Amino acid sequence: MAIKRGLFVGRFQPFHNGHLEVIKDILKETDELVIVIGSAQYSHRLDNPFTAGERITMIRNALDEAKIPVSRTWTIPVADVNVHMLWVAKIVGYSPKFSVVYGNEPLTRRLFMEAGFKVKPVTFHRRAEYSATEIRRRMLENKNWETLVPKNVATYIREIDGVKRLQDLAKTDKMEKQK
Amino acid sequence: MAIKRGLFVGRFQPFHNGHLEVIKDILKETDELVIVIGSAQYSHRLDNPFTAGERITMIRNALDEAKIPVSRTWTIPVADVNVHMLWVAKIVGYSPKFSVVYGNEPLTRRLFMEAGFKVKPVTFHRRAEYSATEIRRRMLENKNWETLVPKNVATYIREIDGVKRLQDLAKTDKMEKQK
Amino acid sequence: MAIKRGLFVGRFQPFHNGHLEVIKDILKETDELVIVIGSAQYSHRLDNPFTAGERITMIRNALDEAKIPVSRTWTIPVADVNVHMLWVAKIVGYSPKFSVVYGNEPLTRRLFMEAGFKVKPVTFHRRAEYSATEIRRRMLENKNWETLVPKNVATYIREIDGVKRLQDLAKTDKMEKQK
Amino acid sequence: MAIKRGLFVGRFQPFHNGHLEVIKDILKETDELVIVIGSAQYSHRLDNPFTAGERITMIRNALDEAKIPVSRTWTIPVADVNVHMLWVAKIVGYSPKFSVVYGNEPLTRRLFMEAGFKVKPVTFHRRAEYSATEIRRRMLENKNWETLVPKNVATYIREIDGVKRLQDLAKTDKMEKQK
Amino acid sequence: MAIKRGLFVGRFQPFHNGHLEVIKDILKETDELVIVIGSAQYSHRLDNPFTAGERITMIRNALDEAKIPVSRTWTIPVADVNVHMLWVAKIVGYSPKFSVVYGNEPLTRRLFMEAGFKVKPVTFHRRAEYSATEIRRRMLENKNWETLVPKNVATYIREIDGVKRLQDLAKTDKMEKQK
Amino acid sequence: MAIKRGLFVGRFQPFHNGHLEVIKDILKETDELVIVIGSAQYSHRLDNPFTAGERITMIRNALDEAKIPVSRTWTIPVADVNVHMLWVAKIVGYSPKFSVVYGNEPLTRRLFMEAGFKVKPVTFHRRAEYSATEIRRRMLENKNWETLVPKNVATYIREIDGVKRLQDLAKTDKMEKQK
Repeated sequence: MAIKRGLFVGRFQPFHNGHLEVIKDILKETDELVIVIGSAQYSHRLDNPFTAGERITMIRNALDEAKIPVSRTWTIPVADVNVHMLWVAKIVGYSPKFSVVYGNEPLTRRLFMEAGFKVKPVTFHRRAEYSATEIRRRMLENKNWETLVPKNVATYIREIDGVKRLQDLAKTDKMEKQK
Repeated sequence: MAIKRGLFVGRFQPFHNGHLEVIKDILKETDELVIVIGSAQYSHRLDNPFTAGERITMIRNALDEAKIPVSRTWTIPVADVNVHMLWVAKIVGYSPKFSVVYGNEPLTRRLFMEAGFKVKPVTFHRRAEYSATEIRRRMLENKNWETLVPKNVATYIREIDGVKRLQDLAKTDKMEKQK
Repeated sequence: MAIKRGLFVGRFQPFHNGHLEVIKDILKETDELVIVIGSAQYSHRLDNPFTAGERITMIRNALDEAKIPVSRTWTIPVADVNVHMLWVAKIVGYSPKFSVVYGNEPLTRRLFMEAGFKVKPVTFHRRAEYSATEIRRRMLENKNWETLVPKNVATYIREIDGVKRLQDLAKTDKMEKQK
Repeated sequence: MAIKRGLFVGRFQPFHNGHLEVIKDILKETDELVIVIGSAQYSHRLDNPFTAGERITMIRNALDEAKIPVSRTWTIPVADVNVHMLWVAKIVGYSPKFSVVYGNEPLTRRLFMEAGFKVKPVTFHRRAEYSATEIRRRMLENKNWETLVPKNVATYIREIDGVKRLQDLAKTDKMEKQK
Repeated sequence: MAIKRGLFVGRFQPFHNGHLEVIKDILKETDELVIVIGSAQYSHRLDNPFTAGERITMIRNALDEAKIPVSRTWTIPVADVNVHMLWVAKIVGYSPKFSVVYGNEPLTRRLFMEAGFKVKPVTFHRRAEYSATEIRRRMLENKNWETLVPKNVATYIREIDGVKRLQDLAKTDKMEKQK
Repeated sequence: MAIKRGLFVGRFQPFHNGHLEVIKDILKETDELVIVIGSAQYSHRLDNPFTAGERITMIRNALDEAKIPVSRTWTIPVADVNVHMLWVAKIVGYSPKFSVVYGNEPLTRRLFMEAGFKVKPVTFHRRAEYSATEIRRRMLENKNWETLVPKNVATYIREIDGVKRLQDLAKTDKMEKQK
C-alpha cells in the first residue's frame, strides 16, 4: 500500500490544543492518521466526562477549524478491553491498516512494541497547560479553560453544557457516603 | 396511568433507618415506590458486603416492621452497567413505569435529568449516623450499630452472621500482600 | 428459619394462566414463593418480547387479580449467565433463602440437583394452550390470545401495545437479508 | 443546531451498491449522515466476515469513488449490546447528535420509535442483487460479485484476500464435527 | 529457546481416541504440546456437556493411560472471546510460548495463519466413530460409546454420571415450550 | 475417590520461594494439588505484570527445579468473575475435584467456608521478603530480587525481559496526565 498511515490513541477528555499540535506534527510525516478514541465506553465520570459521540464531535470541530482535511484522518472510538493482552488485537481489528504508532504513553508503547509495531514518540507542547487533567480541574473551579482548547471545541462544550455536567459529577463522591 | 410511581436507587449495604425514613416520605406523595437495589452483582466486599438476595430480604423485613404494605413497593435488583450512558435505559427496562425519580446522589440525578425525567431531592435524617458507611465502620470495630437499622434488619444480619463476614473481609488487603 | 420458601423460574414471555396455576399450587405447600424472572436482560426479541420491568408488572397484576398477597411472593429478575456452572450460585445470590426448587425444565432441575437442592415437579394445566410460545404465535397471527392470560395481564399488554411490538419484530429476519 | 443530521445503521458485510444508493438518497435531504457500523465486534464469521476496520475502509473507499465528501459523513463502529433495551442509548452515546433515523430494519425502527425518534424508510434498489447475503453467497461459489459493490470496494476486498477468508470459514462447520 | 512446542485446540466434549492419536502424532515431532481446552466456560449443554475441570481430568487420565508424561504437555482451559479478532491474542496470552499450531479446524487455521503462525494439519483416525458428536449421540441413545474413548475416560464419565446428565439435558428443548 | 486433592489459589505475580514452600508443605499432606492462577486475565499492569501463560511457565519451571512431579499438580488459570457470589462455583467448574482448600487469604477462606468447604491455613516463610509485592518493588528499583524466586523463574523472567516491562509500565500514570 502506497499510503503511509500513523495511529494515535487518546481519551480526549476533552480534546485540547496539545492534541491538535501532535496531530499536525504527525500529519507532516504520514499521509493519513487514525485517531483512536480510547475508553470510548466511559462518560459522566470525573476523569471521563464526555461520551464517545461528544469526543468525536470535538475532534471533527477542531480539525475543521485547523483546516485539516477530514479525509486525511480516521476517528475511531474503541471501548477498553481491560485485558491488556488483547488490546493491540482490538485496535488492529477496529482500524484501517496502519504502519506506525505515535505516542508517549508507556503502556501503549510497550504493548505495540511487544506486538512488533514501530512506535515513535511525539512532542507535547506546553504540557502543564495543554493537559486534559488541568482543563477538567479548571472547569471544576470555574477558571479559564477555553484558551486551552480549539475555539470550536470550547463552543461545543458550552453548547452541551459540559462544565455544569462535570461540576455536578464532582459532588458525587461526597454524597455517596450518605447512602 | 392513574397510579403515580416514584423511583429511588440505593445500594443498601445495609438498609438502615435513614433509607426507611426516605421511603416513608416518598410514599406520602406517591402511590407506589420502585426501590432499585443498585450494584446488585456485588457482595463479600468491604463496601458491598451483602448479596442482592440479602438486601432484598432486609428491605422486606424493614417494610413489614414499619407496616408499609409490600404492595405499594417494587424492589428490583439491578447490576451495574459501568457504562453510564446506558444506565437510565437499564433502570427503565427493569422497572415498572415510573414518573418521578427521588434522590440526592448527583450522578443519578444528572443522568435522569439528561434523559428528561423529573428528579426530586429527598431529606436524609441524622446523616452522620444513618449512613451505611458509618454502620459498616461500627460493625468492623464491634461498636453499637443495631440502633441505626430497623430491628428486623438487625435480627436478620445477626442470623446470617453478617458482622463476622465483614470483619473477615477486612483482613483481606493486608494478607494479600503475602502473595 | 420457620418460613418455608419455594423457588420457581420462568421467562414469562408473557405470564399466562398456566404460570398462575402453578404458583397457586406451590403456595398450597409453601409459605412463600420466590418467582425468578429468567433471561431478564432480553426484550424486543421474537421469543423474548417483553422487558423485565414489563414482566414484573404482569406478575404483580396477575397476583392482585388472583387475590394472592404480594407479601407471600418475591419477584426477582435475573439476567442469564450463559456459563451454566455459575447459574445456581447466581440464583442463590439474588434470592432470599429458599429450600425447595419447583419446576419441570430439565436444565434447571439438573443444575439444582447437582448443587444438592431438593427439586419438585409441577403440574402444568392445559399445556397446549397455556404456553407462552402458543400465545406469541397467536399474537403474531392476530388470533385470540387474551383468554390464555389473566385479564389484568391482557389489559396491560394492550396498554403497552405489546402485540404490535411483537408483530413489528416478526418482520425483522426477512428485512435483514437486504442489508 | 442548524445542521440536519441523519443516522443509518448497517452491518456492511460487505458494503455494496445498495448501501451506496441509500446513502446518496439520504444526503439529498440531510446535511450530514452518521453511518453506524453495527455488530462491529464480529469478523471471521460466515455472516460477518470482515472486521470493523475493514468495513470502515470499504466505506471510505466507496465514498471517495462516489465523490461524496467525507466531511458530510461520520462512520462509527458500534459493538452489539444484545440487551436491546440498551441499544438506542448506546447509539446515542457513540454518535454526534442526530435528528432522523433512516432504515427499514424493523428492530431498529421499533427501538428508535419507542425512544421517541423520528424514523424514515429508505428505498433499496435492485434488492435481490444488492444484498450482502447474495454477495457472500456468490463469493463462496466463486461467482461474479464484483459488479454488486463499488469498484474501490472490490479492489480492497481482493487486496485483503477477503474471498479466500470467507471460503476458508465456510469449511468450518463440517470439520468441527471431527472434534 | 531450544524446546519445540506445538499447540492443539479442541473442545474435548468428551476427549476421545481420535484426540489421543493426534496428540501422540504431534508429540513425535515436537518436544512439548500445549493442549488448549476451548469453550472452557461451557458445560451442561447438549453440545458442551462437561465442565472445563471435568475435561482437564479426562485428558490427564487419558495421558496417564497412554504413558504420555504429563511433563511433555500443558493443558490450558480458555473461555471463548466470541470476538474472533481477539482470539489468537488470547491463546497467546494464556499459553507458554509455542511455535507451531496443529489442527484442521478452518477457523483456527485461518486466524493463526493471518497472525503469522506456522499451521500444520493433523490426521484424524476413524473419523466417523472417533468423533465427539458421534459419542454424544450414542450416549443419548444408550448405545455403545465406551470403546471410542480411552478406558480411563470412560471410567471417569461413569463416575460423574455423565451420560445421565446428557440425557437430562436432552429433554430441555421440548419442555421449554411449556413455559 | 481415593486420591486426596488440595487446592491453592494465588496470583503468582511472580511465583516466588514463599509459594514454593507452601506447595511443598501441602504436598506433604495431600496426594495432589490444584494450583489456581487467579486474575488470569490480567497482565501488563503494575500489580499484575505477567500473562497467565508466563505464570504457568514460571510454575512449571519452579516445580521442575524442586523435583516436584508435574503429575502431582494441576495448574489452572482462572479469570476473575468480580461477582464474588459466583467465584467458588467458577473455581469448582474449572478444577478437577478437590476436598480441601489451603490458604490464608481472607476472602478466599470466607467464600469457600460459606460454600461448605474445608479450609486450612498455610505457613508462609520469611514473609517480608518472599512477597510478590516486595519482589515487584525491587524490580522497579533495580535491587536484588533474583534470590527471592526459584532460580529457573529468575532465568525465565530475564528471558522475557520482565523487569524492563514492569519498569516501562511504572512510567504510565505520570505520562497519562499529559493526555
